[in-house]
Order: sequence, then C-alpha cells, then structure tokens
Amino acid sequence: MRKKFEIPSSLGIYGNKETASGILSRIWGKKGTFTCTVSSTLTSTIPGISDAGNTPELTLFTGPADAEILVCGKAFCMNGIPINPGNIPTPATLTMAALQLSNMPCYIINGGCKIVPQIPFFDVGATYGEKITTGQSVKNVREIFEKGKILGKNLAKGNDFIVISESIAGGTTTALAVLMAMGILEENLVSSSSPKNPKKLKTSIVSEGLKAAGIKIGDLIHDPLKAIEHVGDPMQAVNVGMLIGTAKTIPTIMGGGTQMAAVIAAALELDPSIEGNIIHGTTRWLVEDRDSDICGIVDRIDKNVPLIYTNIDYSASPYEGLRAYEKGFIKDGVGCGGSSIAAIATSSGKIDCNALFNKVQDIYKEIINAD
Amino acid sequence: MRKKFEIPSSLGIYGNKETASGILSRIWGKKGTFTCTVSSTLTSTIPGISDAGNTPELTLFTGPADAEILVCGKAFCMNGIPINPGNIPTPATLTMAALQLSNMPCYIINGGCKIVPQIPFFDVGATYGEKITTGQSVKNVREIFEKGKILGKNLAKGNDFIVISESIAGGTTTALAVLMAMGILEENLVSSSSPKNPKKLKTSIVSEGLKAAGIKIGDLIHDPLKAIEHVGDPMQAVNVGMLIGTAKTIPTIMGGGTQMAAVIAAALELDPSIEGNIIHGTTRWLVEDRDSDICGIVDRIDKNVPLIYTNIDYSASPYEGLRAYEKGFIKDGVGCGGSSIAAIATSSGKIDCNALFNKVQDIYKEIINAD
Repeated sequence: MRKKFEIPSSLGIYGNKETASGILSRIWGKKGTFTCTVSSTLTSTIPGISDAGNTPELTLFTGPADAEILVCGKAFCMNGIPINPGNIPTPATLTMAALQLSNMPCYIINGGCKIVPQIPFFDVGATYGEKITTGQSVKNVREIFEKGKILGKNLAKGNDFIVISESIAGGTTTALAVLMAMGILEENLVSSSSPKNPKKLKTSIVSEGLKAAGIKIGDLIHDPLKAIEHVGDPMQAVNVGMLIGTAKTIPTIMGGGTQMAAVIAAALELDPSIEGNIIHGTTRWLVEDRDSDICGIVDRIDKNVPLIYTNIDYSASPYEGLRAYEKGFIKDGVGCGGSSIAAIATSSGKIDCNALFNKVQDIYKEIINAD
Repeated sequence: MRKKFEIPSSLGIYGNKETASGILSRIWGKKGTFTCTVSSTLTSTIPGISDAGNTPELTLFTGPADAEILVCGKAFCMNGIPINPGNIPTPATLTMAALQLSNMPCYIINGGCKIVPQIPFFDVGATYGEKITTGQSVKNVREIFEKGKILGKNLAKGNDFIVISESIAGGTTTALAVLMAMGILEENLVSSSSPKNPKKLKTSIVSEGLKAAGIKIGDLIHDPLKAIEHVGDPMQAVNVGMLIGTAKTIPTIMGGGTQMAAVIAAALELDPSIEGNIIHGTTRWLVEDRDSDICGIVDRIDKNVPLIYTNIDYSASPYEGLRAYEKGFIKDGVGCGGSSIAAIATSSGKIDCNALFNKVQDIYKEIINAD
C-alpha cells in the first residue's frame, strides 16, 4: 500500500486538505522555477494607500528594487533595500533565503514597472497602471494577458512546477476593486502591508474607481479582464495569463496574499479546467491577520484551491526589523510564502521553517552591515 | 567497464572527438533549454551584404519574425515567414521541427531588435546595432554583456544543458570584423546565407569599419568587448555574456555558423575556464560550404571547442524551397543546427536526422498551404 503523504509541520493548510496533499505529493522532490511579476500602479501614490515603501513616491521603486535583489542580491534603482516605514525590510529577504537554500531558478517578469529594473527580465509588453480612480487603469489588457499565457505554457515545458508571485505596491486595493467588480466581495476583506490597514480609505478609493468606470458590484462576474482593465493593475492581467498557461499542465503555486486571490478568481472564471492544479501559497502572518480575512476570501471564491501557508516565525530574532513581522507588518509579498513552500517541496522537506529563519537572519545581517 | 559513448550517424564532428563525445555523453538523455538571441544591425541594410530577407529593408524584420515563429508558430511583424530571395524559407523551420519533436522550452532574448517581436522575450537592455562602417556599432556593450552573464547563470540553474543561438541579418559581416579586430582572421573565411557569398563587399565594409574605428588587425586580441563595441553587433555582446554565464557550470551548445565562432572566441578570451564545456553546433550544409571555411576558423581560434554538425539532408524533398538548402542557400541560422543536436541528445538519439527531415516537411507544407 502506498504510504499516505504527510504534511510537514512547517506547512499549514486551509481548505481542501486532500487536494493540498495531492498537489504537494506531486511536487515533492521535484524541480520548480520561481517567477515574480513586478509592476506599478499609480494607485500606490495616493497618500495612505500603501506602506510598501517609505513614502508614497518610493512605493514605485519597491517592485523593481525587489526584482533586482532577487536576481543580483542588491538593488540598483535605490540605495539599500525597500523598507516599510519603521525600517522593516522587504519580504524579498525571505524569498532570497528560499531561493538560495533551494538553488531554484528565478525569473522576473516586467508586469509594467514605472521604474525599469536593471536586470534581465521577461518583457510581455506591459506598462504601469494608472490610478484606479480613473476607472481606466490598465492598458492593453488582452495583449499582456495573452503574452502571459504564452510565457506560462513555455515555462511549464521545462519544469515540474512553477511559482507565480508579485511585487506591486497598492496591489491589495486593486485586488479589492477587481474582487468587488466580479461580485466575489461586497465588503473590504483584503490585507495591507501595514498593521493599521487603511480599510476605509481603500474602500472609498475602490468605490470611486468603480463609479468612474460605471461598474456596479458583481457587474463583471464573467468578464474578469474587463474588471482588471477598469479597476485592476497590470500584474493581475499578466499573472492571470501565466496561471492559465502553467496550470493547464503542471502544478502552480500562486505566491501571495489577498492580491493573488483576485488573480486566482479571474483565471478560474476564464478557464475552470485549471482547478486542481493550483495552490494558493502564503504565510502564517497573513492567515493570522486580524484586519483582513484571506480565509473568508478563499471561501467566497469557492473553488478547490487550497491555501497553504508556511509556519515561519520571526519571534526569536534579535533583529527588530524582522520581529516586526510578528506584529502584523508586511505579512506577504514578493512570493515570500510561495517560494518558501516551493523550497520545502523541492527539497522533499529537507528545507524547513527553521532553516529559512536562519538563512533570513544571515541575509538581513549582511544587508544592515553593508549599509 | 563503462561502455564507450558512440556518436550516432546523425552527427558529424570536426575537432577534438574525445571532448565532443565527452560533452555529448554528459547531455545524452538530459534536459536542456533552447535560447535564441534576436538582434538587428543596420549593417544588413547595406545593399548586397545580407540575403536574410527578400530586400535590404526586410532584413530588419528577419530576427523578430523568426522569434515569433519559434514561440507562436507564426510571424506577427510580417506576412508569411522570412524568406531569402528565391522563396527559400528561414532555417527557423528546422529549429521548429527540433523544438516540437523534443518538446524543449524555447526562450527568446531581445538582443537589440529594430522591430520589437510580439511575444514574451528576455530584455537585457540591448538596442539595435549601427552600421559597422561608423566604427561605433554597439551601444552599452558592458551592460548587455553583464546582463547576458546574469541570465546565463540563472538559466544554468534549472537545466542540464543550454543552447545559445542567434538570428541577426548581417551577422557574418560583423563576425568577420570582430575576428579580424581580434587578429584571429586576416582574410575573409566567413559564410553567407547566399550561395554567392559577397566576399569582396564584406571585406571592404569590414575594412571601412576598422579604419573608422582606428583599429588595425589584431589590435584588440585581448579586448573582445571593445572589438564588438566598435565593429561588432549587439547579439555578440549578449551571447558572449550568456556563454560565460552558462558554460561556467553546464555544457553549452553554441548553435550557429561563423557568427558563433566570433562569440566563442570572444568568450574564451574573457574567461578561458569555460573551455571543455562548449560545443560549436552547426549543420553539414555549412561545413560543406565551398565559399567559407568554418573548419579553418575553428582551427585558427585554436581552442578545445569541437564543431558538431547534423547530417541533415533535404535532397529528397519534393519542395524546391527546401532542396535549395542543398545548393548552398541559408546553411545555418536561428540555431537550426544547434537545436537539432540538442533534440538528438535530449532524446538519447531517438530523434534523428530522418525524423527532423520529415517534421520540417510537415511544417513547411503547413506554412505554404496557409499562404
């Protein structure tokens, strides 16, 4: 009798445990590639919307700088690394740890950056997104979706599984807007990189965007690309395409928080056949967040896409910047949860949360000493 | 006793047979990725220099169209497919056959295209090259070289071997110029996609370029990037970087004719440690060409880089456009030789020249019927 796959203690599951175990067992010890789609939406420059950057203007540098860090170990488009107010380092530090421990290849997709990252990246023809309050926030949606799909199909050929992730400041607001346009959410359940989630501001910006686009809640239940075009961001269009391209043939980990929920919902609406090949991968920090409700969003999407989270814990760190993660700062981003799950899976569990924690500390120490 | 690796009849070797067998045995049945760097140099628009396109202006569409064909099966930036005068189809048709039979992933690198291909591609910051007669033909050489190196290192992580190739009209002229600036050639031994190799014109254009740059033959023996900057093309800079990035850790097939000789020579000058991990991969058509001397060039580079060629033969084809390959048209390009070798190797020899020939006929038939 075949031994039942046992989920290691480094991982937690919300949703269908059987599907989760099934997918994990199929990628256990297998070869994957990590991808991160970096984008900008001017929505992040609305004061108060995003903490992913030390000031509203710096939020536009966050995605590109994260991309540079993942590929080259340091940022070129800014000094140091992206930080949230309070000197809390980008979650890319955890993604780096996962990639270095697992030696997984990492490809960056330029999902429309205002600042172009100074590294090799996949170009899919995307340009940065406008403020969603314009009601017309993403250009050439169909083109970047189709190119994302082609790229996904191609990536699927050479891998056993893929991680798709994002770095886009302001992305939870655009996620809320798309989920509302699709009628999946009627209220604000999305997350924030700040422990003080500016829920009222986000809700009012989203309402303004929907109104400007002439869209009522649920109007675009069957047309997610139109929802993205009017009130979404370019990362969503690219990643919806990529997800359909990869999950058609191989398991795909969608690394991210509530932002990825919008991408998953949109992709499943366009191609229901990919259900059963998708894991939504995140962190314990997000699942335990009291100001958002990722589990509630997963329930409302109501598809067979299990949420898997890493039980990583920074409490014991001597570094205040890392301990802040335990106080509700950051929570997820740059695929830090998804890449951790991938590192655990590709190493057949040899890499665990403890190893990731130790590696993050090494990386963070090196960064602060280099400053 | 371990069985000696036997080279299949689909492949021929010039140079060190032991090194060739050694590398082939290391990639036999293993997983590779095909890449093609597509670029433009305005050198191709000098009338008479390039036949890779039906007119001098159309040569600028050849690389991008080839890239679109490889990734999507059809060209978007032109009607039909690139043809040489006389209706001879692009060698991308053979590359497609190799990729389809082997199911190898294929990534395009934008090595500086005048016309941007309408597909996902790796951006390394390259812009198209100027005419070499300016003596200043490639911009930001160091940047695109370094980004190529980063990309190569990343590709090496997820693969057992890599194919690096090119599609750039005018590329044999820029290859001649770089090989002369490096002192490897003192006379014109390079190939042409035409059976009437315009050797005198090429030599005079190269002389004009070297003069404009104030470079004498052999001046830049130890500075290949400077040679490329003045009289080369951007594909060379990107591929030199990629080759150093990949061959540092995994076997690399450099797919192409005399153009790739310049890239190999430049890379070995910059990093001799990669010797022993490189195959120069081409076709019988090029090796048998009476108007060029790839073997002579390989001898002059004088490094341990064996030349492996596919023994493909189009004589029995009912299609005139394909039979033209046996009359000295085209010979190599778009990595058609390199991808064929890769397909043979990755399939442990299950794919052979016969299978490739049959597949090319299917592909060509479909293309002419679609017109």
